[in-house]
Amino acid sequence: MPPAPLPHQLGELSELLGQMCAEAAGALNRATTAMLGDRVRLAEQVIAGDSEIDNLRARVEELATDALLFHAPVAGDLRAVVSAIRAAGDIERMGDLALHVAEVVRMRHPRPTLPPEVRDDFARMGVLAVQLALKAAEVVRSRNVLMAVELDSDDDAMDVLHRHMFTVLMDPSWPHGVPAAVDITLLARYYERFADHAVVVANQTVYAVTGQEPDSIPI
Amino acid sequence: MPPAPLPHQLGELSELLGQMCAEAAGALNRATTAMLGDRVRLAEQVIAGDSEIDNLRARVEELATDALLFHAPVAGDLRAVVSAIRAAGDIERMGDLALHVAEVVRMRHPRPTLPPEVRDDFARMGVLAVQLALKAAEVVRSRNVLMAVELDSDDDAMDVLHRHMFTVLMDPSWPHGVPAAVDITLLARYYERFADHAVVVANQTVYAVTGQEPDSIPI
Repeated sequence: MPPAPLPHQLGELSELLGQMCAEAAGALNRATTAMLGDRVRLAEQVIAGDSEIDNLRARVEELATDALLFHAPVAGDLRAVVSAIRAAGDIERMGDLALHVAEVVRMRHPRPTLPPEVRDDFARMGVLAVQLALKAAEVVRSRNVLMAVELDSDDDAMDVLHRHMFTVLMDPSWPHGVPAAVDITLLARYYERFADHAVVVANQTVYAVTGQEPDSIPI
Repeated sequence: MPPAPLPHQLGELSELLGQMCAEAAGALNRATTAMLGDRVRLAEQVIAGDSEIDNLRARVEELATDALLFHAPVAGDLRAVVSAIRAAGDIERMGDLALHVAEVVRMRHPRPTLPPEVRDDFARMGVLAVQLALKAAEVVRSRNVLMAVELDSDDDAMDVLHRHMFTVLMDPSWPHGVPAAVDITLLARYYERFADHAVVVANQTVYAVTGQEPDSIPI
């Protein structure tokens, strides 16, 4: 069978990346629900589902390699293929981070993962991170460069929540001791990294479309 | 000026990746020395030097894109170019992790970063992580697939140290409270992630040379 035409392959690449982002968003959403509701079976579903995102990544690389091999793309098309390879790596990592959250929930079960003081903050981080991943999905599908800029301010909100978490932990009156603090430190880091990767994915799309890194574009 | 021939560009890509790994190893080595000796100026040098690794990554992507554009490589050559793009992302991240270690040292100064109980463990993690990065440098330069396998067992040793750190922190007799535990949790994670990325870089070389992911090769 002859290879599909290049525009078709590029469209399929965008679609796969969008699907990967949506899967990562779904995984972190379920992991957060599992964490807040101490639902170990839901956490186990997230753990079992991670291979789906890994498979999508393999599919992106295969398709990107085919596009390079059969069409030798140039200019913006070449950037789109190279960016897809990079973005797939970032989104796979987002899936891994959702998996790590679910693993902590499973490890702590039947005890609740979070003490009451930080549940609201984690609920907020969860909403923000999932929102970032869904916006990244929209950006890679629509190649809407202006929308990519929105992700930066969402990520700033995440950084504020992340820093606030450390203020809570460092308070001398923190009543839950070191083990809970260690878990929360790592969990907060997983959410913050997840959000960072979503921003990178959107920025890679900006680069693919414009040929410039977002920092250098005056918007 | 006409583009360099493909074998020349591929050689230069390997050389740049090797240089990136060596820079990341040097950065983590200095960050570890700064942490163990509470040397804030050395930490600041690491922080200032991170842009060098970022520049090398940009150079790798530029060269890889040129190779795709001018030579439309196939088979193993195409895999080498695609792997170089992926590996450069991982090595840039290793540089970021060394930077994070240095940032903790600077933030805690003039207090020592580490309590005495964990200094030896961090010294060992530092040695292992630097060794992994130097082996990854050797693998990307020599494309020695058998050497890549060594990195897996070094990484296992890192995982043992990483887990041990949590045992130390979770001990009810831990005398340094939550703030020190939070720092140590993050620092230990930086070393463990640095080592993971070095393994991934080596595995990408295995993939480039053999066309198979290392897990599927019976060695």
